[in-house]
Amino acid sequence: MGTTATLGAAAMRAGLVAPTGCVTARPDFASVPLTEFGDLVFGGHELVDTPLLKRAEQLVDARVVPPGLPALVERDLRAAEEEIRPSPLATAPDQRTAVEQVAAHLAGFRHRNGLDTVVVVNVSSTEAPLPYELPQHTTLDALRHALGTDTAELPPSSLYAMAAFTAGCPYVDFTPSTGARLPALAELAEERRVPYAGHDGKTGETLVKSVLAPMFARRALRPLSWSGTNLLGGGDGATLAEPDRADSKIRSKRRMLAETLGEDVHDAVHIHHVPDLGDWKTAWDHVTFEGFLGARMTLQFTWQGCDSALAAPLVLDLARLTAAAHRAGLHGPLAELAFFFKDPLGTREHGLERQYDTLVTWAHSVSSAAS
Amino acid sequence: MGTTATLGAAAMRAGLVAPTGCVTARPDFASVPLTEFGDLVFGGHELVDTPLLKRAEQLVDARVVPPGLPALVERDLRAAEEEIRPSPLATAPDQRTAVEQVAAHLAGFRHRNGLDTVVVVNVSSTEAPLPYELPQHTTLDALRHALGTDTAELPPSSLYAMAAFTAGCPYVDFTPSTGARLPALAELAEERRVPYAGHDGKTGETLVKSVLAPMFARRALRPLSWSGTNLLGGGDGATLAEPDRADSKIRSKRRMLAETLGEDVHDAVHIHHVPDLGDWKTAWDHVTFEGFLGARMTLQFTWQGCDSALAAPLVLDLARLTAAAHRAGLHGPLAELAFFFKDPLGTREHGLERQYDTLVTWAHSVSSAAS
Amino acid sequence: MGTTATLGAAAMRAGLVAPTGCVTARPDFASVPLTEFGDLVFGGHELVDTPLLKRAEQLVDARVVPPGLPALVERDLRAAEEEIRPSPLATAPDQRTAVEQVAAHLAGFRHRNGLDTVVVVNVSSTEAPLPYELPQHTTLDALRHALGTDTAELPPSSLYAMAAFTAGCPYVDFTPSTGARLPALAELAEERRVPYAGHDGKTGETLVKSVLAPMFARRALRPLSWSGTNLLGGGDGATLAEPDRADSKIRSKRRMLAETLGEDVHDAVHIHHVPDLGDWKTAWDHVTFEGFLGARMTLQFTWQGCDSALAAPLVLDLARLTAAAHRAGLHGPLAELAFFFKDPLGTREHGLERQYDTLVTWAHSVSSAAS
Amino acid sequence: MGTTATLGAAAMRAGLVAPTGCVTARPDFASVPLTEFGDLVFGGHELVDTPLLKRAEQLVDARVVPPGLPALVERDLRAAEEEIRPSPLATAPDQRTAVEQVAAHLAGFRHRNGLDTVVVVNVSSTEAPLPYELPQHTTLDALRHALGTDTAELPPSSLYAMAAFTAGCPYVDFTPSTGARLPALAELAEERRVPYAGHDGKTGETLVKSVLAPMFARRALRPLSWSGTNLLGGGDGATLAEPDRADSKIRSKRRMLAETLGEDVHDAVHIHHVPDLGDWKTAWDHVTFEGFLGARMTLQFTWQGCDSALAAPLVLDLARLTAAAHRAGLHGPLAELAFFFKDPLGTREHGLERQYDTLVTWAHSVSSAAS
Repeated sequence: MGTTATLGAAAMRAGLVAPTGCVTARPDFASVPLTEFGDLVFGGHELVDTPLLKRAEQLVDARVVPPGLPALVERDLRAAEEEIRPSPLATAPDQRTAVEQVAAHLAGFRHRNGLDTVVVVNVSSTEAPLPYELPQHTTLDALRHALGTDTAELPPSSLYAMAAFTAGCPYVDFTPSTGARLPALAELAEERRVPYAGHDGKTGETLVKSVLAPMFARRALRPLSWSGTNLLGGGDGATLAEPDRADSKIRSKRRMLAETLGEDVHDAVHIHHVPDLGDWKTAWDHVTFEGFLGARMTLQFTWQGCDSALAAPLVLDLARLTAAAHRAGLHGPLAELAFFFKDPLGTREHGLERQYDTLVTWAHSVSSAAS
Repeated sequence: MGTTATLGAAAMRAGLVAPTGCVTARPDFASVPLTEFGDLVFGGHELVDTPLLKRAEQLVDARVVPPGLPALVERDLRAAEEEIRPSPLATAPDQRTAVEQVAAHLAGFRHRNGLDTVVVVNVSSTEAPLPYELPQHTTLDALRHALGTDTAELPPSSLYAMAAFTAGCPYVDFTPSTGARLPALAELAEERRVPYAGHDGKTGETLVKSVLAPMFARRALRPLSWSGTNLLGGGDGATLAEPDRADSKIRSKRRMLAETLGEDVHDAVHIHHVPDLGDWKTAWDHVTFEGFLGARMTLQFTWQGCDSALAAPLVLDLARLTAAAHRAGLHGPLAELAFFFKDPLGTREHGLERQYDTLVTWAHSVSSAAS
Repeated sequence: MGTTATLGAAAMRAGLVAPTGCVTARPDFASVPLTEFGDLVFGGHELVDTPLLKRAEQLVDARVVPPGLPALVERDLRAAEEEIRPSPLATAPDQRTAVEQVAAHLAGFRHRNGLDTVVVVNVSSTEAPLPYELPQHTTLDALRHALGTDTAELPPSSLYAMAAFTAGCPYVDFTPSTGARLPALAELAEERRVPYAGHDGKTGETLVKSVLAPMFARRALRPLSWSGTNLLGGGDGATLAEPDRADSKIRSKRRMLAETLGEDVHDAVHIHHVPDLGDWKTAWDHVTFEGFLGARMTLQFTWQGCDSALAAPLVLDLARLTAAAHRAGLHGPLAELAFFFKDPLGTREHGLERQYDTLVTWAHSVSSAAS
Repeated sequence: MGTTATLGAAAMRAGLVAPTGCVTARPDFASVPLTEFGDLVFGGHELVDTPLLKRAEQLVDARVVPPGLPALVERDLRAAEEEIRPSPLATAPDQRTAVEQVAAHLAGFRHRNGLDTVVVVNVSSTEAPLPYELPQHTTLDALRHALGTDTAELPPSSLYAMAAFTAGCPYVDFTPSTGARLPALAELAEERRVPYAGHDGKTGETLVKSVLAPMFARRALRPLSWSGTNLLGGGDGATLAEPDRADSKIRSKRRMLAETLGEDVHDAVHIHHVPDLGDWKTAWDHVTFEGFLGARMTLQFTWQGCDSALAAPLVLDLARLTAAAHRAGLHGPLAELAFFFKDPLGTREHGLERQYDTLVTWAHSVSSAAS
């Protein structure tokens, strides 16, 4: 979805497409002084070395992007290509060096492009959850010491969060991976006075659930069971076919229901890999609920969405909003960005409408603080 | 659904069931001094003379009500039976007499039962819409004069609204029929200082739409088409198999989308009669929407609900809330009850969450006003 | 779908695609000597004068055909273009002349291309049904006389059928229009010893019904209601938004259920126009059925299909099979082609499996007769 | 479903219900001399000692059986109750004794009731599959020897099959458990000249698949993926929540697709336990398929069925047909009963229509053989 975001921003810059799907382009944010979509500059670390233009053409074949679009913004794609590097994680001799190299990349990117703020967004494959809390993750001192002895055992997402904070960059986790969710890294973010946000972009099934669950609650209807089946293809599907990675995703997806409807709902999320779906996702949810005098009723929904087309504009929104927060001097977890996440940091509010109101209010307050 | 509401209130009075589906039983209303469910007294006008106990047994056969329940509250059902009358509309020599007879029934019911307030709720079959505005409906004087010469041409729902206001009773329209929506009747409600609410209880398909439509809006996703198919059985299905009555219902159901998403969505609601569904309703909605870079996606939902189990608790909620408004001296249309209606009086807000917040705030203000 | 069929045959000739969706390419037909897909020659009458290559590109935009394919078979498309004419119906002074002109076109096409047989396939928009039987349609003599006095009142589909028979060409009706279904035309087909087939290609919803209805029957389960909703875009959707044309289609779609399950099923088919669906169709069917001891159960299906991709290969199949029948000297209605049609001529068998067995047996017998 | 079958047969004997769901009650079987439904006599082994009348009442609460029915056939239920015993498997000192005790029960039941044939039908919980082939299961001699030394390691289903054969009774396996599928037991069935049938009654999702899979094949459409999700409650759901038992069921459910459509389809079946569904099952299947020129299309279906109402009449059908086979002197596996099973013995034909034709032909031939 990094490719889709880069391509989409270029297409908006060229005036070729409307900002459909970009929340911060709504009139509610008109008076909030956010970086223009066209002024965003892209770079990144990639595991594979397929050229960006070729990736963009693959999105055409996958029916994510209209035919002809990549060619129209080729210059911007080539510029972004210049700022794509292989990740140093595979080659660095130890984790301390890896953190330093990533941080150096970030600082270099900021410098070369004369940027105000660089927001690091994790859009890589979902990691397995950490099995238990390690002592070296509980304080920043312990973590720094462990890095020196190469016993830090940071998962890649946390290593990137550490590098971002070290370089003074905000960090956004669009995945359910560990990322900044370690006490040591929270300390580091405070020390460096950078904000961060996450976890796990709410793009499809959970988005729908985040309005249906409050609907049942407001109507005093009692859900008895909520069974969700997710069919997904492509790399994401293959990653989540591994049970421990799927477990990260499922935990993230389940949090909302329990916190909205209580623990009595028999609630399950299943993820199945269907290779031919490619970048598309189909979710089928089946909800049984009880009404007046015990009547048993059912709601089902089927969502057929294109994952990267849903996620990419939110990545742009998050970059704009997090950069604004950084400029306004905010630091630590940004609970007010819960609207974007399945498993939001710092809040138990999962209802989409309330999250939206919070977001709009916050965006306006941030911009007044900044001015 | 009158039977279900009567039976349900009796079952709650007897402590046999929880108030599932009753919105005013939620903790948010705990401090609002509403009439207890068990203190509500029921009466009504019926077209058919099936005894109430027998109707209750029919609800058991239709799997709306658990076996055995009617027998447990037989005494309450017999008491309600005493207050059920044939409608005078069929026998009154003219509309003026009909209004007077209904008003007299209402006053008698209030007196016999020593009641504070009587709320008239229209739960009868949907009428065809009035084809055009009649001059005798535009002012109260004109209407009164027309009644005298028997040229009032009031549809039954409006005749009942007029009788209610005449007797000093609030009126709630749970159907899309004309009811109190005539300038002459608005004048009468002002004159008699009674409140009224409507139109068309939001129980199933439209309820779900009232959270999904704002979801698309908040996310800057662009619905292209929204096609709804409603399969319904029983008397409701048969009534709505008549095209002009269906037209009333469809207009009511469509208002929400246009006012939430704008006029660009190709929006259609279809109603089909499937006799064997009885009291159950199945709605299938198919939504196509556009996301980032023009990607086309789809959401479908299937709702399988029991109409009277969904509507009856809302009728109880509306009786409690409207009675409280009356006690607090409110009069005219109650826009703050929009939460309950497909086609709410006095507001263009259709989003369920915002309607809920408005409702809770209003309920608390009404109760402080009253105390 | 004429464009899709022409393009697809060209792509098969060039070895670019497999014959997916072509029934006569299955191994069951391997030993039946049918014209090779690549040897078929295309021509036609068109109402609009968009060039064929441009239409093919529109199919790419509509996601029916893969990007790049039209360019690869451009030569074949240009050749077919040469054989596309405006229909003489709009310009002919009377219906007799129109029949003669169409027949002359057919003979010219056959001669120019040195063809053995020309099969006329009606793939135009659905017509409204004829409201009643006209006397001039009951015998060939009466029809010929009426043509002379310009009172024939033939709908376009029947006029084309008459022209085909006059030119000695078989006729296939892929639509529910009247076509060859007039006694006078049956007489003409006998006189000219040409075969014909129809009506209404079974491509989506009815295809699925033609296996589900027998399933219920074999299992002694009793369907109570069968409600079908069809959402369709494009020209087809617009045509069928006209109630009398939709009526043709709905009659055609309903015949199967009544003849498979009997008259007791509450059976309805609804067609709704959803412009943004373009060439795609979504059908939702909801079936209630009764099982042992009266248990009520439900089956729903949602079919999301691309109409021209479903229809085009069947048009090729029908051309191959009908040409073979003609070569073998068969004439009159070909009931054995029921497999392809919603409303088959000459049979009440609607079950897909039995239709398939009949088709395979017939194809082998035709080929032995021919040799 | 034993209770439902017993209750249903009693209700048919009393003329209270039609034989809806009973395949052998269809006109196609009218001339086949099968035991009358009302002449069937029921007995069985049960793990729990809930009285049959009480179980029948539980079926009323679960909305499987109409209120009032159990009371109307109370006498028959009490008679069946007399023939229900606890299974000796829990108490027998070794497997040889268990086989002998079960066989003695069967002989006693046959004698007491003066029966011609006793058909043993396995309707117990699904067992885990045997992990590998044991040497003592490969020949009857080896099995007999192992029984003597108590190393037979027969799963309960196989122990019952052995007891049935020993007592000269046909055996039908309505579950995916091992049952008679051991070489040693096949030998015993030959020795005792008894027929047997199985495996795994085809009642819901697989039934629908058994007509849809051939539909795709006949139309030369190419399924790419077939994902099935099964939500089930009650005891069955709890049993299949155990992965190794679910594995038995899933293997059984998957066989059909691979043998109908080939190995290229990405095919998965998932089973999830949703306690509140009780005796009801919901299956959602999502099929992607490719048509002409590579167009990608989708079919989804949702089946909401009552498992015991679907299974019970098939158990009666199987008892009637297997008894007839026994009377006609048939022995060994009855491949012609494949119509009833997900994973049929002795055939690779899974298409429902062909299975039905085979069944009807066979039933007629059996009855001529017998006469």
